[in-house]
Amino acid sequence: MSLTVDALTETLVQVRQKQPVVHVITNWVTAGDVAGTLHAVGARPIMAFALEEVNDIVSGANALVLNLGTPDPSRIKAMLQAGRRANSLGRPVIFDPVGVGASRFRAEAAERILSDLRIAIIRGNRAEIGALAGMGGELRGIDTATAPPDLRAAAGTLSLRTEAVVAVTGPQDLVVSGGKAVIVENGHPMMSQVTGMGCRLTALIGAFAAVETDLIAATVGAIAFFGLAGEQAALRAEGPGTFKAAFLDAIYSLTPAEFQRGLKLTEQKIR
Amino acid sequence: MSLTVDALTETLVQVRQKQPVVHVITNWVTAGDVAGTLHAVGARPIMAFALEEVNDIVSGANALVLNLGTPDPSRIKAMLQAGRRANSLGRPVIFDPVGVGASRFRAEAAERILSDLRIAIIRGNRAEIGALAGMGGELRGIDTATAPPDLRAAAGTLSLRTEAVVAVTGPQDLVVSGGKAVIVENGHPMMSQVTGMGCRLTALIGAFAAVETDLIAATVGAIAFFGLAGEQAALRAEGPGTFKAAFLDAIYSLTPAEFQRGLKLTEQKIR
Amino acid sequence: MSLTVDALTETLVQVRQKQPVVHVITNWVTAGDVAGTLHAVGARPIMAFALEEVNDIVSGANALVLNLGTPDPSRIKAMLQAGRRANSLGRPVIFDPVGVGASRFRAEAAERILSDLRIAIIRGNRAEIGALAGMGGELRGIDTATAPPDLRAAAGTLSLRTEAVVAVTGPQDLVVSGGKAVIVENGHPMMSQVTGMGCRLTALIGAFAAVETDLIAATVGAIAFFGLAGEQAALRAEGPGTFKAAFLDAIYSLTPAEFQRGLKLTEQKIR
Repeated sequence: MSLTVDALTETLVQVRQKQPVVHVITNWVTAGDVAGTLHAVGARPIMAFALEEVNDIVSGANALVLNLGTPDPSRIKAMLQAGRRANSLGRPVIFDPVGVGASRFRAEAAERILSDLRIAIIRGNRAEIGALAGMGGELRGIDTATAPPDLRAAAGTLSLRTEAVVAVTGPQDLVVSGGKAVIVENGHPMMSQVTGMGCRLTALIGAFAAVETDLIAATVGAIAFFGLAGEQAALRAEGPGTFKAAFLDAIYSLTPAEFQRGLKLTEQKIR
Repeated sequence: MSLTVDALTETLVQVRQKQPVVHVITNWVTAGDVAGTLHAVGARPIMAFALEEVNDIVSGANALVLNLGTPDPSRIKAMLQAGRRANSLGRPVIFDPVGVGASRFRAEAAERILSDLRIAIIRGNRAEIGALAGMGGELRGIDTATAPPDLRAAAGTLSLRTEAVVAVTGPQDLVVSGGKAVIVENGHPMMSQVTGMGCRLTALIGAFAAVETDLIAATVGAIAFFGLAGEQAALRAEGPGTFKAAFLDAIYSLTPAEFQRGLKLTEQKIR
Repeated sequence: MSLTVDALTETLVQVRQKQPVVHVITNWVTAGDVAGTLHAVGARPIMAFALEEVNDIVSGANALVLNLGTPDPSRIKAMLQAGRRANSLGRPVIFDPVGVGASRFRAEAAERILSDLRIAIIRGNRAEIGALAGMGGELRGIDTATAPPDLRAAAGTLSLRTEAVVAVTGPQDLVVSGGKAVIVENGHPMMSQVTGMGCRLTALIGAFAAVETDLIAATVGAIAFFGLAGEQAALRAEGPGTFKAAFLDAIYSLTPAEFQRGLKLTEQKIR
């Protein structure tokens, strides 16, 4: 199995060498930050959402990221169309169910995305994954949430149903697939004070999945890298504003050697 | 009356403790900065504009903020629908008439919003408030304006007509309601060099109004807090870029004690 | 001819004095950064894209900037309508064919814009200008590209066909019009690591073209100024995050004297 420190480090090296194109259909609130994060890690973001062009765009991309923030019916349609094309081309589709518990419209759109498309990886916070799994979890605003009663069970259930790798991020990050769970303990509390960190991370997972076919390795690698960048940034930040700048710097400059030294993972079996 | 320093400080403490959910229907140019500001003060932003979901979203929110920037007919429709729901639920609706003098479309949309909805607080720059009051004021671009001939009369007229608290911000900030006027003298000239400061402030007023039923106190408290954060940020900034980062840091870290010490208010009667 | 150092410096002084209003119809990914850049140089940005208001908005503006990023049919329609109005009013129209090689939809929209409107200045990266000129150039993602085989010929062909000044920016910047070419060698490699630098530059060219009728001078002046701001910012940056902040500071504070001293231009004849 590929969750060795060396294999994860190699994935980072591959992102920077291959510079994968990542097509992102996303909310406009954090779109600039998402593109900037992909750019800083060495990937090539392309944002496009018109039905008239998403087929062309996804055909030229190495991964597709779907983000449910600020949804409207035509964006959801574009997600489904781009997702089908990505599926037929064998490109990984990564899904971020932003605020899925906040409206029936988002819940139905998420259901549609999960039933019509083959999703490779789902990343959400605790409430979002709880809601998707049908196991509760309350959402208040975006980026904050209360947890469902049994987080691991919720993620496991969702992973079984969708056959996707499921990542639940928060104070501690959990990646579940089949009967396996990995806990990532990199990160820093300041990351929860910045808007759109989840959106950035989901896009970064897309960049890793574009170069690494082992989807658990891609997910775990991206989450640990993201957390490490947050740890580095926190050393230079005095609040969320300076943190944002230092974080983008760290995404750009964090070396494979630092990545290798800093990783904090624990693998577990789910009974 | 509640404009004591202690009461205003208590409002800041309440925002951070209660972490109100603020639903913002806004332009996409500054949406990320608006969400970041709400997040930094401890509130929970949720951006949503589709007719299909605004009723659900506003039902889960403690305040609704409507921002007229980059308008289109479907966003205006969503504002009206969300506003009616907020009115029926008794949640405060805060309105920012961005660029209202720049097109007939914005003028008509603003008129519709003011006539169909019960607006709690209106915040604009001098030209915007002048235009809304039907008393002139010229707008050139966004964020800059010439003043109507009698600013206080314009704000007073608009407040009488709408029964809203009216805040006019600029080099000096004026809050008018009924026969009362409060002048806030916190702030820093660098704030006028940064795009979207008005949008951020209107959203912040929403967070304060979500926890404080005295709408003048909520407005004055938010404006003074915002100005103080600007004063702190200016000490660390070398231009609008570093100012933006330092400002978000200050919104996050400005303490109640600093707020209490720094407030600069003057109350006046309007004849 | 007006490409003297004194004349270019005077253009910068004029932008800051006249504070031209620049109407920008653009993608939402970088809209905030574009507005911020215009604001920092002293211009007045106004973003508006609804068919219902673009005529009013462009009538109050001194230049119109059209940016092809994240396009959809209604935004393209608004661009055409606003462009026609700008043409009839004699205001310069600046076009940025973002990602034009990435989809048939963008290619057709760009063709329509070039055939229906009188474009004053076109700015793109090497792949975009190559694609517009029908001379190849491959686009992968946004902000990165491979060059067409003969860059100068591509720009020259496009300039002849459209009668526009054509600017190709990248490691070296080339401005072509009629039989003349100017090479600008200001800039810094870190500029290629930040998302949306091209969008910012195109908007800045709009601000310069709003105050300077010699369109080559306006284009060269804006590009050199932008590059110099990048050089200054790189001295203070540790990565793309801190660079973004320092860059906005430099746009705001770079003096005419620094501009005059720092300019690196070469003029050439095209055979």
